Amino acid sequence: MTTKVGYLGPKGTFTKIAVDALFSGEEKQSYMTIPECIDAVKHGHVTYGVLPLENALEGTVNVTLDYLIQYKMLKIVSEVVVPIRQHLMVHPDHRDDWKDITTIYSHPHAIAQCHRFLHNGMKHVPTETFTSTGAAAQYVSEHPESKFGAIANTLAATEYGLDIVKENIHDFSNNHTRFVVLHKNDIQWSSPRLESKGYKTTLMISLPTDHAGALHQVLSAFAWRKINLSKIESRPMKTGLGNYYFLVDVEQKMDDILIPNTIAEIEALGCSAEVLGSYPYFICENV
Amino acid sequence: MTTKVGYLGPKGTFTKIAVDALFSGEEKQSYMTIPECIDAVKHGHVTYGVLPLENALEGTVNVTLDYLIQYKMLKIVSEVVVPIRQHLMVHPDHRDDWKDITTIYSHPHAIAQCHRFLHNGMKHVPTETFTSTGAAAQYVSEHPESKFGAIANTLAATEYGLDIVKENIHDFSNNHTRFVVLHKNDIQWSSPRLESKGYKTTLMISLPTDHAGALHQVLSAFAWRKINLSKIESRPMKTGLGNYYFLVDVEQKMDDILIPNTIAEIEALGCSAEVLGSYPYFICENV
Repeated sequence: MTTKVGYLGPKGTFTKIAVDALFSGEEKQSYMTIPECIDAVKHGHVTYGVLPLENALEGTVNVTLDYLIQYKMLKIVSEVVVPIRQHLMVHPDHRDDWKDITTIYSHPHAIAQCHRFLHNGMKHVPTETFTSTGAAAQYVSEHPESKFGAIANTLAATEYGLDIVKENIHDFSNNHTRFVVLHKNDIQWSSPRLESKGYKTTLMISLPTDHAGALHQVLSAFAWRKINLSKIESRPMKTGLGNYYFLVDVEQKMDDILIPNTIAEIEALGCSAEVLGSYPYFICENV
Repeated sequence: MTTKVGYLGPKGTFTKIAVDALFSGEEKQSYMTIPECIDAVKHGHVTYGVLPLENALEGTVNVTLDYLIQYKMLKIVSEVVVPIRQHLMVHPDHRDDWKDITTIYSHPHAIAQCHRFLHNGMKHVPTETFTSTGAAAQYVSEHPESKFGAIANTLAATEYGLDIVKENIHDFSNNHTRFVVLHKNDIQWSSPRLESKGYKTTLMISLPTDHAGALHQVLSAFAWRKINLSKIESRPMKTGLGNYYFLVDVEQKMDDILIPNTIAEIEALGCSAEVLGSYPYFICENV
């Protein structure tokens, strides 16, 4: 079977930027929803699945995590961080009179992210929403007769032949999205295009009851071993309000002693700990 | 000035359900984006702003938090948790032949949330996306001649006169969204419609450097006082990769001794702690 990479589409989205940053010659297959893409990996229709894990325009962290934790059979084999940069783009015919545009199209979250620019520089230009920034860019490219603008990323500009007339119009310059690469097995994966910035191990830890000291005890098990945590997040279990689990990112590769001993200790405290993946992470600088 | 409540629109969304659950006679004003609604509170165009804080279809947690932390002048005065329940609905003319619907319209995240139902029960029916579940319901209501279905909530069914033909088609039954009520000042607010389930205090804690022990030390300050944390989340600062702050929900009202002493201790460790609000929380059961 040829290697196929599934991702959350459509074309011209940040997920596709992540795919192109990590992979090279493989066949790419876009899916309309996160669960469809996860199913495709599970059933072997694609080898890898690339999905947003947090802070994405097109999908929420919850959907990827819920299905990942529910199925439990997929592993995270890589992560890539992509900066979110939004640009104002128009059809090349309107390159010079872009300040006269009459409507700006984009995804609602992208419009929200560019609030200050729109409020200060484009106050009287109405905005209209599309379900993706890519779809907005496509619409603008198909209407050269109208003075339309789109807010989207560089890939969408290239994909649909639009000219960027105002760069980096998003309010917060350090917005990033994390994407994960999923695979059926816990394989060692490395990108043919990017160099790894280090390793991470993601653990899902659930506490028996939601009491003040349990989380503190769990973190002690990491702290006294000087294991650095780059992320910790409590999330409600799907079994009801008041039950929580914790997602913890450890800043090192799974080893034979430190992490397994930490897990054994956490379990001895009456908690459970599961490794969702131990993987290299990448940063995509040029977007 | 009459009391006005701003919220993230349009009509028929989960945010509107939160508004209707908490408020009664006040004038309601919908905004297209989260920053627009926050601006409206800041400039006094509305008294309260109701926005999703996590896990919402219409907005991401990041946008509300980013602007809340950036402006720093607004306080959280209340929280309401709304269960996310999705239903399949059709025009009343198609109540009996709903199994023959030819297209299902909804928000992309709602389609993702109902993956199993769509995959098992409606496999050959194509889905089309709208920017909100409310807009999808409106479209279906305006096309009685076509056998269309929408996935949306009960409010959308009522608002647009559609009949629910299949209830609770979402995959995970314990999905909830948290909404916060924002106000210019740290006032004592109580809902005229719902009874409070308790109090919470939300703190933003930033660590001087991202090292293994700092978070553990901070949590110790809560743990030895037996202050229960119902949520903890690390989030990247907007100043660059690698800098984190923590959002912590304490399960009690701001007091004169325990929380102020904890904050003083955290600050003595070289961290900073800021109270985003101390407020009653509500649960909206009937959606």
